[in-house]
Amino acid sequence: MVGFPTPKDPFDAPMRVEADLRGVQVTQGEVPEHLAGTYYKCVIDRQWPSFIENDLELFNGDGMIIAFRFDGGRVDFKSRYVRTPRFVAEEAAGRALFGAYRNPFTDDPSVAGVSRGVANTNVFFHGGKLYVAKEDSPPVIMDPVTLETLGEYDFEGTLTSATSTAHPKFDPVTGEMVFFGYAAKGETTRDIVYYEADRDGRLIHETWFQAPYSSMVHDFAVTQNFVVFPIIPLRSELEWIEKGESHFKWDPHEPVHLGVLPRKGTAADLRWFTGSNRFASHIMGAYDDGRFIHIDTPVGAANYFPWFPDVTGAPYDPERAKGYLSRWTVDTQDATRGFTEFRLCRFAGEFPRMDDRQETLPYSWGVMALLDGPGGHSRPGGGFRWLSGIDLDSGRQQIYWPGEDSTVGEPVFVPGASDAPPGHGYVFVIVGRRAEMRSDLVILDAQRLDAEPVCTLSLPMRIRMGLHGNWVGADELAGRTD
Amino acid sequence: MVGFPTPKDPFDAPMRVEADLRGVQVTQGEVPEHLAGTYYKCVIDRQWPSFIENDLELFNGDGMIIAFRFDGGRVDFKSRYVRTPRFVAEEAAGRALFGAYRNPFTDDPSVAGVSRGVANTNVFFHGGKLYVAKEDSPPVIMDPVTLETLGEYDFEGTLTSATSTAHPKFDPVTGEMVFFGYAAKGETTRDIVYYEADRDGRLIHETWFQAPYSSMVHDFAVTQNFVVFPIIPLRSELEWIEKGESHFKWDPHEPVHLGVLPRKGTAADLRWFTGSNRFASHIMGAYDDGRFIHIDTPVGAANYFPWFPDVTGAPYDPERAKGYLSRWTVDTQDATRGFTEFRLCRFAGEFPRMDDRQETLPYSWGVMALLDGPGGHSRPGGGFRWLSGIDLDSGRQQIYWPGEDSTVGEPVFVPGASDAPPGHGYVFVIVGRRAEMRSDLVILDAQRLDAEPVCTLSLPMRIRMGLHGNWVGADELAGRTD
Repeated sequence: MVGFPTPKDPFDAPMRVEADLRGVQVTQGEVPEHLAGTYYKCVIDRQWPSFIENDLELFNGDGMIIAFRFDGGRVDFKSRYVRTPRFVAEEAAGRALFGAYRNPFTDDPSVAGVSRGVANTNVFFHGGKLYVAKEDSPPVIMDPVTLETLGEYDFEGTLTSATSTAHPKFDPVTGEMVFFGYAAKGETTRDIVYYEADRDGRLIHETWFQAPYSSMVHDFAVTQNFVVFPIIPLRSELEWIEKGESHFKWDPHEPVHLGVLPRKGTAADLRWFTGSNRFASHIMGAYDDGRFIHIDTPVGAANYFPWFPDVTGAPYDPERAKGYLSRWTVDTQDATRGFTEFRLCRFAGEFPRMDDRQETLPYSWGVMALLDGPGGHSRPGGGFRWLSGIDLDSGRQQIYWPGEDSTVGEPVFVPGASDAPPGHGYVFVIVGRRAEMRSDLVILDAQRLDAEPVCTLSLPMRIRMGLHGNWVGADELAGRTD
Repeated sequence: MVGFPTPKDPFDAPMRVEADLRGVQVTQGEVPEHLAGTYYKCVIDRQWPSFIENDLELFNGDGMIIAFRFDGGRVDFKSRYVRTPRFVAEEAAGRALFGAYRNPFTDDPSVAGVSRGVANTNVFFHGGKLYVAKEDSPPVIMDPVTLETLGEYDFEGTLTSATSTAHPKFDPVTGEMVFFGYAAKGETTRDIVYYEADRDGRLIHETWFQAPYSSMVHDFAVTQNFVVFPIIPLRSELEWIEKGESHFKWDPHEPVHLGVLPRKGTAADLRWFTGSNRFASHIMGAYDDGRFIHIDTPVGAANYFPWFPDVTGAPYDPERAKGYLSRWTVDTQDATRGFTEFRLCRFAGEFPRMDDRQETLPYSWGVMALLDGPGGHSRPGGGFRWLSGIDLDSGRQQIYWPGEDSTVGEPVFVPGASDAPPGHGYVFVIVGRRAEMRSDLVILDAQRLDAEPVCTLSLPMRIRMGLHGNWVGADELAGRTD
């Protein structure tokens, strides 16, 4: 293979390696023996070089699943590409056939009609199945042990949407998976579909509606009584991709709309709460008290992604792009008032996560990666340099710093025990040791992020940039159906 | 896993990664499209840390096979551990169970009677089977495509030896595999068995004899009419390993003996040709004219391996240890005269190889890695810094230098075409880019080692230290029986 661009930092070069390593080396501390389960994470590693100039690998590269399996103090590592229909087609050709990010007009004619999904955003487990998702396509399921790809999954023929979010929410009370698709009738359509699946993964609810404009609906908020769809003006238009322009552009003139529905509500129940122009993407957590809905999300004054242009031609503004964890509150009894915003954190950050056992419920503990922090700014291009644990009641923050020349990925909470209090347990984070050209899995005490790590598991190779992951306990994996 | 020693150079740290990479990046030149076949190499990567202090990983570590498969200009990479009985036993335990190098007295009692072989020395193809060999145990066979281990192989129950050499020779005229076992009745025994297998891998000849003393018989010479067993005074004694001492010790008082047999001769035909004390290990090539046998091998004044002590307690002497390619000539009609020695090369080197199509036959082209060369000395501990192509008729040498901070492994010749003249084709070599923590497969023009490489295939990770490998053409692989 030829044609991969040379990155500025060799740490960011392609890997494309599917690996197995049994007994990952512990180079600091001790692996808690009681930890039993697997930490899955989605990483991105384009298998064949793109024929599109400056294509967006972070969003358009092939997804690979890495898995650290914990059992009795021993940790085994495995990584496998997600063999999407797209991957399989390109593998057979030995070259890229799909073109620009979410632009089918740029594809090789030979793959017309083949799913464009790259399964590179999130990996999660529900109803006995391991899902890998990318928001522009149906999810893919994989064998949770071998990481063999089982194929795109349409919920036994019941998925009516062309797309499915990478950020479903899991109701810990009912076991339901709450999810949605946007651009659900095809790229740039305004159609959104809201689904719920029961604890066994069967679709039990489906509602279709249209957003005020077509945009990237990357995440949403789910509480015990409501679902909220944030429409953020990172807009898309069919004409743009027909002309080969960016799929998404930032529109500083459009307001933010929050589409609020009662859980399992229909389109007739939908109400829009509107606020001024701003940017948000990931939701840390959300809950309601029957009337007020609280949604915690990093909020920036403008578009976070430098590669998506401004419709006005204005240049990217890294200061205004910074997102600060903020709480949006909706009064469901007064749609005329829009929603309020309150900043929760003094450092800009992203990849907000919580103790998922509290998802949809009131919570006070969260963790995120910081864009800037006590030591300055993070690396341009997505390399975060700190984590921060946050107590939302007290506002107290703890900082984890991985050391010089190291970058961190998304933090993931792992319960210390099934009955551990909320936020008590571990934070797992992949740390890139950039000068050493390899990566660690660092396990932190979730209540003492600033203390010495619980342990460090050292890989002899790099883990490539990635997005989201999740811990799946051995008890839950035992209920696998695939 | 804990307990791996930290190497001086991070490049030499354990990897333990089994990998798949399809479409290896070509970062210089172009892969010759007509090349069809697989380059296999044995590398060494201990899977579980040893419980023996300063154990000898290079000789006692687990063998892993790396394979570069060439087809139409595309190159795929795969690596797999050889799942020897020893590997399987340790894998089940999740820790090392076998002790010091070739010393069963240091093993965990739970593995008494389990084969100690680590299959870490050489990988070769004959009679439709891919063999991996370590000289202290029977060979292991693997699926040549998946690299799945099929098990230790006893030639359908006909292998009578406890051991089998890692350096068989292949007679290009008859298709026979000529091989042997030393310490063939158990560690430190003086018994040697000489076998020939027909082109289909069936044993057709077996001769047993005893060496003057028990020693490391790492390689041997095979010509059209003779086999020659070099007995070099890197001796072994049962008492030493019973006491936990080194399996091998250098004895500066013992002579070298060459045991000469006609091809398919019996013990009654064996004659010994004796010479003064010196060291030799690998054979580049050998041939005979009916009366005189010529054997080309790097010869040093003393023991090459710093980790094997001198029986006299004398310290290791790196200058005297250097081996210079030399030609030993035996007059088979006059055993009283011993054998002569003539130096062929002005640079010390090891890993001598030839165009294997000429094995057992007169030849003039060879290649080796240099211990010292035009730029000074190679790295201590086995990292070679140059290759040299050698025309044995003219004495002309060409030097390949891989660049700063780079080390080379064993060079392997690959014919340019099945009917290419001897020595015309390519030299494959794994180059460690130590500062970059990754490795390349560099393909050189065998006739122009000093020219720009034909191409460079770049891996995103390190290849660990290794010993020997071979190219197997696609036509030959098509005849696989396993």
